[in-house]
Amino acid sequence: MKVRECMEKEVAPIMTKYWEKAEFPFEVIPKLGALHISGGTIKGYGCPGLSITGSAVALAELARVDASCSTFILVHSSLAMLTIALCGSEMQKQKYLPSLAELSTVACWGLTEPDYGSDASALRTTARKVEGGWILDGQKRWIGNSTFADVLVIFARNTATNQINGFIVKKDAPGLQATKIENKIGLRMVQNGDILLKNVFVPDEDRLPGVSSFQDTSKVLAVSRVMVSWQPIGIAMGVYDMCHRYLKERKQFGAPLAAFQINQQKLVQMLGNIQAMLLVGWRLCKLYESGKMTPGQASLGKSWISLRARETVSLGRELLGGNGILADFLVAKAFCDLEPIYTYEGTYDINTLVTGREITGLPSFKPATLRPKSRL
Amino acid sequence: MKVRECMEKEVAPIMTKYWEKAEFPFEVIPKLGALHISGGTIKGYGCPGLSITGSAVALAELARVDASCSTFILVHSSLAMLTIALCGSEMQKQKYLPSLAELSTVACWGLTEPDYGSDASALRTTARKVEGGWILDGQKRWIGNSTFADVLVIFARNTATNQINGFIVKKDAPGLQATKIENKIGLRMVQNGDILLKNVFVPDEDRLPGVSSFQDTSKVLAVSRVMVSWQPIGIAMGVYDMCHRYLKERKQFGAPLAAFQINQQKLVQMLGNIQAMLLVGWRLCKLYESGKMTPGQASLGKSWISLRARETVSLGRELLGGNGILADFLVAKAFCDLEPIYTYEGTYDINTLVTGREITGLPSFKPATLRPKSRL
Amino acid sequence: MKVRECMEKEVAPIMTKYWEKAEFPFEVIPKLGALHISGGTIKGYGCPGLSITGSAVALAELARVDASCSTFILVHSSLAMLTIALCGSEMQKQKYLPSLAELSTVACWGLTEPDYGSDASALRTTARKVEGGWILDGQKRWIGNSTFADVLVIFARNTATNQINGFIVKKDAPGLQATKIENKIGLRMVQNGDILLKNVFVPDEDRLPGVSSFQDTSKVLAVSRVMVSWQPIGIAMGVYDMCHRYLKERKQFGAPLAAFQINQQKLVQMLGNIQAMLLVGWRLCKLYESGKMTPGQASLGKSWISLRARETVSLGRELLGGNGILADFLVAKAFCDLEPIYTYEGTYDINTLVTGREITGLPSFKPATLRPKSRL
Amino acid sequence: MKVRECMEKEVAPIMTKYWEKAEFPFEVIPKLGALHISGGTIKGYGCPGLSITGSAVALAELARVDASCSTFILVHSSLAMLTIALCGSEMQKQKYLPSLAELSTVACWGLTEPDYGSDASALRTTARKVEGGWILDGQKRWIGNSTFADVLVIFARNTATNQINGFIVKKDAPGLQATKIENKIGLRMVQNGDILLKNVFVPDEDRLPGVSSFQDTSKVLAVSRVMVSWQPIGIAMGVYDMCHRYLKERKQFGAPLAAFQINQQKLVQMLGNIQAMLLVGWRLCKLYESGKMTPGQASLGKSWISLRARETVSLGRELLGGNGILADFLVAKAFCDLEPIYTYEGTYDINTLVTGREITGLPSFKPATLRPKSRL
Repeated sequence: MKVRECMEKEVAPIMTKYWEKAEFPFEVIPKLGALHISGGTIKGYGCPGLSITGSAVALAELARVDASCSTFILVHSSLAMLTIALCGSEMQKQKYLPSLAELSTVACWGLTEPDYGSDASALRTTARKVEGGWILDGQKRWIGNSTFADVLVIFARNTATNQINGFIVKKDAPGLQATKIENKIGLRMVQNGDILLKNVFVPDEDRLPGVSSFQDTSKVLAVSRVMVSWQPIGIAMGVYDMCHRYLKERKQFGAPLAAFQINQQKLVQMLGNIQAMLLVGWRLCKLYESGKMTPGQASLGKSWISLRARETVSLGRELLGGNGILADFLVAKAFCDLEPIYTYEGTYDINTLVTGREITGLPSFKPATLRPKSRL
Repeated sequence: MKVRECMEKEVAPIMTKYWEKAEFPFEVIPKLGALHISGGTIKGYGCPGLSITGSAVALAELARVDASCSTFILVHSSLAMLTIALCGSEMQKQKYLPSLAELSTVACWGLTEPDYGSDASALRTTARKVEGGWILDGQKRWIGNSTFADVLVIFARNTATNQINGFIVKKDAPGLQATKIENKIGLRMVQNGDILLKNVFVPDEDRLPGVSSFQDTSKVLAVSRVMVSWQPIGIAMGVYDMCHRYLKERKQFGAPLAAFQINQQKLVQMLGNIQAMLLVGWRLCKLYESGKMTPGQASLGKSWISLRARETVSLGRELLGGNGILADFLVAKAFCDLEPIYTYEGTYDINTLVTGREITGLPSFKPATLRPKSRL
Repeated sequence: MKVRECMEKEVAPIMTKYWEKAEFPFEVIPKLGALHISGGTIKGYGCPGLSITGSAVALAELARVDASCSTFILVHSSLAMLTIALCGSEMQKQKYLPSLAELSTVACWGLTEPDYGSDASALRTTARKVEGGWILDGQKRWIGNSTFADVLVIFARNTATNQINGFIVKKDAPGLQATKIENKIGLRMVQNGDILLKNVFVPDEDRLPGVSSFQDTSKVLAVSRVMVSWQPIGIAMGVYDMCHRYLKERKQFGAPLAAFQINQQKLVQMLGNIQAMLLVGWRLCKLYESGKMTPGQASLGKSWISLRARETVSLGRELLGGNGILADFLVAKAFCDLEPIYTYEGTYDINTLVTGREITGLPSFKPATLRPKSRL
Repeated sequence: MKVRECMEKEVAPIMTKYWEKAEFPFEVIPKLGALHISGGTIKGYGCPGLSITGSAVALAELARVDASCSTFILVHSSLAMLTIALCGSEMQKQKYLPSLAELSTVACWGLTEPDYGSDASALRTTARKVEGGWILDGQKRWIGNSTFADVLVIFARNTATNQINGFIVKKDAPGLQATKIENKIGLRMVQNGDILLKNVFVPDEDRLPGVSSFQDTSKVLAVSRVMVSWQPIGIAMGVYDMCHRYLKERKQFGAPLAAFQINQQKLVQMLGNIQAMLLVGWRLCKLYESGKMTPGQASLGKSWISLRARETVSLGRELLGGNGILADFLVAKAFCDLEPIYTYEGTYDINTLVTGREITGLPSFKPATLRPKSRL
């Protein structure tokens, strides 16, 4: 309720303006910091130590009003901070987490590369050992918060071992450059960056000791996929509330829009979806808490929830008619914001194939390599 | 597990044969009786006194193998027996419930009439008070089990009060006639009847004292709508299991069907739906148990679950290819059985409008009566 | 109009009875013969020599009332007769086509085998050259009309060349056995058979000279896929007509069902689909007639039309409420009949992949053979 | 081809920039003028006198690259110019059409009002007869091009007759004010305005003699609804082309994205939709040309085509993954641009109800006015 109140009071009135300009509302950062939700499930180091369910609900409440804000927190907290908490040294945790928890510093998380979206494990950024540290070279793409983050968690391929390693890179590191990706249709306040790493030196103390292969990112991704699932839930709840209000207030043909069969049925379909999404999200948290959650379950939760959210938000956009294309009424913005979420942290398709592999025992990510001319 | 074992051992091997012939497998009745699930949540009178969740899961397990059997039990137990338990006199409960609980007698429940499906409250069967009892006249349609039921719970309009009353009619009552409805595409084992009541005398002792208006049926319908929701869940689970097995075993183009992206994605979509359906059904039971379930929630559960089940079962039918049109493989039968369930106990549309009224405060069942030529 | 009149007068009144019993209405054969549509586009040999559009519309008119009848004609005319016309010798054409055109004899067409549905080219039935003829050994499955056909066109692998050859097998050939496939949920009048060929001798004169490889079946399949596309069109038109009539006549809540927003919208959606399906089917005929139709276009037509038909028929079934599950009202039967059509002559999925290969240049029928453990 | 060439050469390179800024690319106007398509089907007065099919295809070609440009032309040409051509006096046509045809002046068309979107006929802007002319008072909303149009066609209610009349208002008329509607998620280049008319004087010579009731707008709307239908067609074609190219070029897991089953199936589904949309649009033109098109057919065309386009564009957005949220790649922009089109010129729902009324004879626009508590 605290999160909801803050979002409705502090963020709702200004979000349309920033969304339209595709700028980040820096003035909101201290207010989000004061909510003491950054760091989520991390215990100690100034972090709130929430249950995963509590942390997820907080994220949904952010997304209910504005999905850009919730993505900002997700990247900062459930990806970057969590990586430091899970894979960092004690010294790194003490050094970085407290100010990140307060949001007096901001973090981002760099895995994806220009040519490797769905096939993230194929990354090509390199980390070469040198005296006293490492030299990073390569490119990252889509990295949220990266244009202004103080701390960048960067994954790179160790040229000696050919394995993935993790590094903490500071904003002002020579050779580091982050360029804002322009012209997004959704999550327009989130500042995604193209990162260029050109001979960037990282001292030994900033290498994350807990990352020695791609598999080590999976502990983080397991949590973040659960958290990501709650964004579409929050978005859909916000859209439902707005539609419900709008249909009761707006009249056509002499009656409130809520009195029309067609409109009621859409609203009910939305509500049915949302109830189910919430339960699936909640179940995912319970599975995680009991230590039983598999990667396939996390992927199923993310893909199923975001599919239903897409349907829900599309119905909502339709219910608002012409006002459904104005960001002012929240629904249009939510409609657009859901699209990147549908696609990031594993696209819908990739997540279904992750689950598919788990339930069949057969991976089907790759197409056949041999392609004899079939006679069909 | 007891229910599942019985269904797989006793019913699975014979159901295709009876389904094809559209006959009821009377040999199964004692086996279902021995499961001691008839009477469901009713306490005492030889009934099992299960929790609503337990009762619902038992019903789903029946439906997992055969939805006709689960509908047989639903009508007998969650409609007819429950009406006697909730609206009957102590004497009626003692007289009828024990043998019904054992399934040594079978009951049916007659509300729907030929001209009033969705608008059930408009029923026209009449009950006229006479010396020592009542005279019933009218027609009922679609009444499951009615061609062979020993006990028929019949609703009729009291000609004096114009309110709905309830009666227990015996199989051999003069003037009572039930004709099997032929040519069904689904639930083919269920014997739905057209009932003709022509001057049927019911003694005073067989009038249900607890039914003095249409509203009194709602206590029963609240439970039965929850129970009905678990049939699509059971059906969908059965279909998923069969598809999963089939895709692993059947090969085309040199690989198990389970190895194809397109097939995996369908299977995952089915699994996602089923998980959500289960959670929604479970939540409905919990709401009911806590006394908080509203009619709109029951309707939302039934309509949403059956919509997702329809999608799920349709995917399953497709996954089985040609074998998906043979009742032998369970999936085709399930595909057909779901259709009547999608429509009975309130069609999808009617249930969404019941929920719609609850969330908007505006009923939209009826179309506009005045129809001035619009200028659109 | 002649076809429609015959179907409505001769077939409509009896089809529910035969469908329920899953028997073929032999009494209908002379009536269909008198329509002079058998042989379709074939010129001469007593065949009507219709345009492909004319032939397609005739098939749709059959399907409008009963899809089993249209499938009977499709198999007989557009598969079996057409194969003889396109791949047979002059003597074979003179010998077989005239009586088939009159429907005084009936034909079937055997390509599919138990283990090779989608991957039809992998067939294993063998044809071994012997003195004066050939010995056929193997199995066929799903072969429509085969339990009573006088003439069976059978494809088998030439043991010498390893190529596919075609043969005309007579009903009473020793070693030939066709067993009816029971328990179908759709096209229940169509008698699909499991064919067993055990040392069946076919004289040299009954080998089809025009079939020397699997590719030679493609000329036939090109036409038949166009024709198959018109079955869902006919089915959907029949369903729409019935729904339109039903909604105007049936009343609930004091108004015709046609007056409700929700029902109107479904009806309009059906009409929109049907108009588009008709246009796509018509365009396919025009492309074929101009010699420009590619396999990918035929597959796209078949898959797209049957997908939209599935949606249309499902809406129709819902519109009829309880009466939508009785075969008597045509819609329930149509709902079930569409399912095998959705799947035969290339399932929806296979047809999309045929088109997919054509537009991308990349076949994707087979899954990857190598499956290294992915790290996703 | 001329239109396509111009759009690809002149508009494609700059559209992302203007779309992002939500500004109109005035530099494009002379280039569109030079295409000589403005005025569409109008004969004489410097107009091209195209067939409706020709005019529709031109509009689709505009939309293929940029739907804002096509909407600009649609409003200017198929609404405003056409109203003058159909309802204007000879003098008005000679005065206004030639420069509008050259695009040396720009027009807009004002019917919709803030409180009356779907129920457009209820408009409240008034026209009061005064000496030598009329005084207009009221508000208009969503009027495309209105912030910079030289000529505004405005509909208002004649205070004497209570009927709708039409007027030509000049940009600089005292009392006229048009404010840009900000924060749109689609068609961002189109400048929709809120128009305020405060005591605006229109001389007698600028009243359109051919508009004396709401019905007179229907001649214009009949054409414009056909034209509007071709925008989703053009948009979907543009999206398909881009996706096809992208899937062939972009690689993941070592293969082009076009080699994956899941991707191929989406692409094929898009192609199937587009082919059908084109045929439905083309049929609508033919019906119009033959004088047989009914309002229900136009509404069916618009609603069905835009529904399929919405599905198509949504698939396309998904196919492009992360790049599917950047306006730069055309698809994301198209995804957003389709939403207002889905809703304007009659929302999907309103258009289905217009068709529904035509095929059932029963209007269902309004909900029931009396709402007795139902007992369901």
